[in-house]
Amino acid sequence: MADQAKDPRAAVAAEPVGPHLLGAVVEALEAGQAAEVARLIDPLHPVDAARLIGALRPADRRALLDLWSAEIDGDILSELDDAIRQEVVGALAPEVLLEAVRDLDSDDVVELVEDLDATGRARVLGALGDADRAAVEQSLGYPEFSAGRLMQREVVTVAEHATVGATIDMLRASDDLPDRFYHVILVDPRMRPIGQASLGRILSSRREVRLADILEPGFRTIAATEAGADVAHLFNRYHLISAPVVDAAGRLAGVITIDDAMAVLDEEHAEDVLRLAGVEGEGGADEGVLATVARRLPWLVANLGTASISALVIGQFEATIAGLVLLAALMPIVASTGGIAGTQALAVAVRGLATRSLTRANARRAILREFGAGALNGLALAAVLGFGAWAIIGDAELGVVLGAAMICNQVVAALGGVLVPLGLHRLGLDPALASGTFVTTLTDVMGFLAFLGLASMVLIG
Amino acid sequence: MADQAKDPRAAVAAEPVGPHLLGAVVEALEAGQAAEVARLIDPLHPVDAARLIGALRPADRRALLDLWSAEIDGDILSELDDAIRQEVVGALAPEVLLEAVRDLDSDDVVELVEDLDATGRARVLGALGDADRAAVEQSLGYPEFSAGRLMQREVVTVAEHATVGATIDMLRASDDLPDRFYHVILVDPRMRPIGQASLGRILSSRREVRLADILEPGFRTIAATEAGADVAHLFNRYHLISAPVVDAAGRLAGVITIDDAMAVLDEEHAEDVLRLAGVEGEGGADEGVLATVARRLPWLVANLGTASISALVIGQFEATIAGLVLLAALMPIVASTGGIAGTQALAVAVRGLATRSLTRANARRAILREFGAGALNGLALAAVLGFGAWAIIGDAELGVVLGAAMICNQVVAALGGVLVPLGLHRLGLDPALASGTFVTTLTDVMGFLAFLGLASMVLIG
Repeated sequence: MADQAKDPRAAVAAEPVGPHLLGAVVEALEAGQAAEVARLIDPLHPVDAARLIGALRPADRRALLDLWSAEIDGDILSELDDAIRQEVVGALAPEVLLEAVRDLDSDDVVELVEDLDATGRARVLGALGDADRAAVEQSLGYPEFSAGRLMQREVVTVAEHATVGATIDMLRASDDLPDRFYHVILVDPRMRPIGQASLGRILSSRREVRLADILEPGFRTIAATEAGADVAHLFNRYHLISAPVVDAAGRLAGVITIDDAMAVLDEEHAEDVLRLAGVEGEGGADEGVLATVARRLPWLVANLGTASISALVIGQFEATIAGLVLLAALMPIVASTGGIAGTQALAVAVRGLATRSLTRANARRAILREFGAGALNGLALAAVLGFGAWAIIGDAELGVVLGAAMICNQVVAALGGVLVPLGLHRLGLDPALASGTFVTTLTDVMGFLAFLGLASMVLIG
Repeated sequence: MADQAKDPRAAVAAEPVGPHLLGAVVEALEAGQAAEVARLIDPLHPVDAARLIGALRPADRRALLDLWSAEIDGDILSELDDAIRQEVVGALAPEVLLEAVRDLDSDDVVELVEDLDATGRARVLGALGDADRAAVEQSLGYPEFSAGRLMQREVVTVAEHATVGATIDMLRASDDLPDRFYHVILVDPRMRPIGQASLGRILSSRREVRLADILEPGFRTIAATEAGADVAHLFNRYHLISAPVVDAAGRLAGVITIDDAMAVLDEEHAEDVLRLAGVEGEGGADEGVLATVARRLPWLVANLGTASISALVIGQFEATIAGLVLLAALMPIVASTGGIAGTQALAVAVRGLATRSLTRANARRAILREFGAGALNGLALAAVLGFGAWAIIGDAELGVVLGAAMICNQVVAALGGVLVPLGLHRLGLDPALASGTFVTTLTDVMGFLAFLGLASMVLIG
């Protein structure tokens, strides 16, 4: 039996841009060996070359651009992280930049320029031919994160009456087909798409068959103004591979392919998990300290504010705590378990909203479910904590107070976890945006209030 | 200008399975109107039909299966949530099941049966022809979540010397092509894949061109034992559209297409966000209360345990708190801000590990970055909190204690947030698995300890 790990064609797991390669590149850069640098980088996939460029220290990256930049192609540029791309585009010689962007599909050029500053953008657009520049500028006219930005302008169309044979002849005669296309789109005389045939179906049909007779079922078009996140969800939900994009008049404006939709899905997810955790936007893995602080400090300061509310609540019970200092040690238990429960309900609701499986049709049922789950979790936790406190501290009343506060806070946490994101969504806001602070403030305040309030009534009063 | 929203072909946003449709279906079910039920459901995309079936109450779902199940096809079955699918497959008449699964590609059958119990699985496999059953059983022989489970066995291959013309003739003569295929795979006489040509390239080349001359660059194969998550990452990273899967001997075993990889990516992300939040596995949006409790209670109980550690720590400072009860009100501020900082660092690290952008090559730099960010965030928060406490409470020493504890806990939180997932990853464990409890326990304990410890030295002692 062959050894899988040694078969070079079956190697998924190994990271191509490892410490060994990085070290060798840096060494060659320091020695100024241009040929050695090229020998190391040229065989890399553009994606990996971009990762390597991003992983270098800034000084090494400048050295690389001096020694090797003539080899940079558009595919590498469009794979770079935004900040690094800005730096690289600024450093490239005009003729290198021109060469790099000329062969890219329009969606890749759009991706490349949309985060550049005005100077960088002008440099790239200036390198394009008139037709390509017009296509890119039209895409840039659509809102950021819209289908119009995602689509490639290069499309393959035929008229309604076209046959398989005529289509194949047209494709063979064409010399600027898109890099990737999976369908031939049928358009009416006003360029409105009316259906599409998969390449597999065209290839396996006889020449005289009309494309109109082998159209793919479930055809749908996407408005250029549609949000990218909705497009990604649509591709994933309906297993689409490519779909035509139409302008406001219903005319074909471009095509979105699944690889772009997959990238958007990936970024949307990242945004959700980072936002829920209180990080603003996604930085590269090699981001600097100051950029990291800028993404996190605002949320931390906000939390300082909300945590002060908890402090105020606790402050109201100073007399109670002074009467039984043990309460100060126990109160974070109720608050922290509530925080976890709120986070759980929140994550489930944000996920449900992202996949459109939590809708108006079942929102009421989801809320009731959360209420039930909160009550049951609360009862279970109250039993453990209450009896535990009774057994260890020997105070049954204290156990009852802990248990009652726990039940109360678990229900509030579960309801808050589902109602806050539903409310934000109803208001047209991103449910992952501010839910974290709202919900943990709620569970902290509620946890301290319920526990200390009950304690002041039962134990002290 | 046409009104976009009214163009039925350009409707992305509206949810097809809304309360209106659900209400109409339930009404028709209650009236026993089979024709009306069919009129409502038959036009739906299989994905939407599956969502509708999942969204019904159990009693309504049973009524639906009685009235309408003869219309269920395999595409609907493979889109159902696991628990619902189990229920539906059990309720279907044998001839309906046979009809439903016969036309599915092998990967869809595998997806359909892998979560069924033994009875359900035997029923579905029994409905298949011998060749199809053998293919499905071979896939099921690979580990769960592996490439072997994801792949479809239906592949389109040609010999190394094949021309475009011969390939087209072969495709036209074939009567059981896969539902979806994007490449023709070149194989050697021992069925080992040696390259693949895209359908677009084949369609646009002349008949006499050899496929070997128009192979796609960057060809790679995937081992059948490879983890599904790694495969999904590979597709996203290199913009693959389909890739051949090979067995241990390097022979072609099947093909994975990007739509399956996208579904895996989506599920992996969901798992990450839910695990970070302390939810075990993903339930459907329509899951019941008990299943919800089962997914969340273990983590809550674990948190009860770790929160008790905080309580023990605080308990050590009873005398300090008794001396200045205000400390009890202030101490959650330091702990809770630390918890947020730890969660932030954690989410960034888990994301970096998931996208393979946090690797051994830059782990050291990421740790240094977190240290720096933690220190700077701590300084900024200490300034705000310290001066705030001084201004409001009028106690400069208390402000210094709060600030010093904040800096200390922010650094611990940032380091814990990156070191815990890196450590779990190094041990071969899922970094999102247990990080949440570890890190918040760490920041809680550290927060209380630093604040109360410093306070006992500076303010009381």
